[in-house]
Amino acid sequence: MSKHAKPDHPIQESLASRWSPYGFDGKTVSGSDLCSLFEAARWAASAFNEQPWSFIAATRDDTDAFDRLLSCLVEPNQAWARNAGALAISVVSRTFSRNGKPNSVALHDIGLAVGNLTFEATARGLHVHQMAGILPDRVRELYAVPEGHDPVTGIAVGYAADPAGLSGDLRQRDEATRERKSLREFVFGEKWGNSSPHVAS
Amino acid sequence: MSKHAKPDHPIQESLASRWSPYGFDGKTVSGSDLCSLFEAARWAASAFNEQPWSFIAATRDDTDAFDRLLSCLVEPNQAWARNAGALAISVVSRTFSRNGKPNSVALHDIGLAVGNLTFEATARGLHVHQMAGILPDRVRELYAVPEGHDPVTGIAVGYAADPAGLSGDLRQRDEATRERKSLREFVFGEKWGNSSPHVAS
Repeated sequence: MSKHAKPDHPIQESLASRWSPYGFDGKTVSGSDLCSLFEAARWAASAFNEQPWSFIAATRDDTDAFDRLLSCLVEPNQAWARNAGALAISVVSRTFSRNGKPNSVALHDIGLAVGNLTFEATARGLHVHQMAGILPDRVRELYAVPEGHDPVTGIAVGYAADPAGLSGDLRQRDEATRERKSLREFVFGEKWGNSSPHVAS
Repeated sequence: MSKHAKPDHPIQESLASRWSPYGFDGKTVSGSDLCSLFEAARWAASAFNEQPWSFIAATRDDTDAFDRLLSCLVEPNQAWARNAGALAISVVSRTFSRNGKPNSVALHDIGLAVGNLTFEATARGLHVHQMAGILPDRVRELYAVPEGHDPVTGIAVGYAADPAGLSGDLRQRDEATRERKSLREFVFGEKWGNSSPHVAS
């Protein structure tokens, strides 16, 4: 089984080999790896250098903290994410700290930061599986997240398990081929729906 | 001058050397580089594999197409982005195509895709400067962007110019040291505001 991307144009290996496993092997993520992951997120670009991202994080070897974070995921995600080596919740700041005005790209910029984190993880032999399925109200209550900040995603990090050892449904998902739209479907030139001449051939 | 990040923990070189120049040297981005940039974006993760991203793109050597995209940026951005080697506008799809329901992480997932694009660019010796300052209504009109899709950011790609050749303001910005919050300020453990023990030391 290989979940390696099948790119039509050459891309960096750590982008092509990234995928989101449901099966993790239960090994903890080291503190030094965790620091480098957030360090990678730290240096992402953001509008007016606002850095609208925060994270709540726990490694698996800190059982109490890990279980507390796990309880902030919807149940179907808890079922598999309990074997991750670390968990995090991303939290967005909705307004610019310099003037209090709404930051229309804050969510986008969290994505840039988590993209960096994911790349750093892949380069270190780790895998990342992000989830929209979290319980934001529970996060807010458990961790006293202040007004103006909203929990966005759950982030499971760890070492992918051999799919052969997984139960039916998870095994099927982790063995499925990765699918993507073609560039022609989403890179336009003259007009919406008209593929850019660069990708049209 | 070096805009290299000064990370407190080791990160990949193509993350540390990324920065957002105002000065570009006017050299076009090749079609094959452009394809690999969007190919990198293509393989990003997204909720339910929705891939809520589209792009409108032009390289500098296609003058008409480039100028048309340039006219979609706010004037202060046009002033420097005119020297980029390629321009793109990112466009988000707000709802899931499988059921028409709102996609609360669509903007976030565009960020993941553009993070990939940016990483690929950096690895190829290119620089990326993203802008929230665009004219979304103009993009919508010029390119016939359909309902349910919203222009999000402008993306300038190209080769950084020597800041010494830039005029006062742009030179100053491109020579400024890059600043970031410390990990202690945005990676929390037990509670909001309490740094994670992994980053607290």
